[in-house]
Amino acid sequence: MKLYGYFRSSAAYRVRIALNLKGLAYEQAFIHLQKNIQFSPDFAKLNPQQLIPALEDGDTLLTQSVAIMEYLEETRPEPAILPKDAAGRARVRALALAIACEIHPLNNLRVLRYLVRDMGLSEEKKNQWYRHWVETGLQAVESLLVADSHTGNFCHGDKPSMADICLVPQIANAKRFGCDLSACPTVTRIGEHCLTVEAFANAAPERQPDAE
Amino acid sequence: MKLYGYFRSSAAYRVRIALNLKGLAYEQAFIHLQKNIQFSPDFAKLNPQQLIPALEDGDTLLTQSVAIMEYLEETRPEPAILPKDAAGRARVRALALAIACEIHPLNNLRVLRYLVRDMGLSEEKKNQWYRHWVETGLQAVESLLVADSHTGNFCHGDKPSMADICLVPQIANAKRFGCDLSACPTVTRIGEHCLTVEAFANAAPERQPDAE
Repeated sequence: MKLYGYFRSSAAYRVRIALNLKGLAYEQAFIHLQKNIQFSPDFAKLNPQQLIPALEDGDTLLTQSVAIMEYLEETRPEPAILPKDAAGRARVRALALAIACEIHPLNNLRVLRYLVRDMGLSEEKKNQWYRHWVETGLQAVESLLVADSHTGNFCHGDKPSMADICLVPQIANAKRFGCDLSACPTVTRIGEHCLTVEAFANAAPERQPDAE
Repeated sequence: MKLYGYFRSSAAYRVRIALNLKGLAYEQAFIHLQKNIQFSPDFAKLNPQQLIPALEDGDTLLTQSVAIMEYLEETRPEPAILPKDAAGRARVRALALAIACEIHPLNNLRVLRYLVRDMGLSEEKKNQWYRHWVETGLQAVESLLVADSHTGNFCHGDKPSMADICLVPQIANAKRFGCDLSACPTVTRIGEHCLTVEAFANAAPERQPDAE
């Protein structure tokens, strides 16, 4: 398999963790987002969305990190990144999507660029925007975790799942932008526990060959 | 089952379509987003995310529209809203998430409010923002549809799937805000075809009891 990613993309970071957890070998192609390589004709031909990550599995090109994780779970089921029961699976997916749909889309590079270049926001306002969505979004995740007895060492029990895979990159971004996570002790505890697992630690941005 | 929704919420609209396609009966509770009922203590206790939709299935409370659709597919598999093959499922999910992660999160009510109230944008700038993400986002969906021979009367072949379920509410929003869809003929064609199906037509905002 071949992963088209970028060390700092948190969606690519998710896929790296999932591949590592499942023990799957992969090569990486690096799409430098700051240098706009995602808009190059070659990459646009590969993924018309001009977004990363994209994962090649033989002749199949997969896009959208959450869809890629579902595909990996269906084609390489063990070790699982979703629980076995329908309610548990729904809970893990809801936690993952509370990050993938409610936080991350508001704060990726193209959105931040648009806020400054086209909406005319100052750097200060842009950073306020960033922190607002990360802090309120992770507080919502915190309240979901606190409200449910299924929360364990990981988001759902004592095995890492799709929820943790989405959480860890979001926490890394939060820290990079100086967000206040003091209202999120459970999120923080689980994030720290995840990083004791090699699959998570090895997927970190700073450990990637294209890290700057 | 009981759906907590709002006629104009496109995420609730998705769940209404999915329930209809699967022929599942449900009652509705109406959470008036403009009146901030989602922030009421009663609703916050039900869904700490303070977001709709939420679906009660017996004792299980489900949140996040995409997670709800996956749950319905697992617990009420027929008629299916995902193809049977892993690559097809990945394609449908990627199309659904190209809307649910790349377009809709940027344009929901709380984000638009924040842009005006906290970021100080004018109504005109806010509408420019709205149209930008819908138009570029649906153009990305268009290019995915055009590039793939699996595209049929619906997004994937000739049966409605999760991709169509996400597409139709997004098109409805696009029209409401006067977005330019002239670059998206395939998107438009599929959207119109979907509306000939009763399950889609009956889920439309204007047909809901809380429509204004």
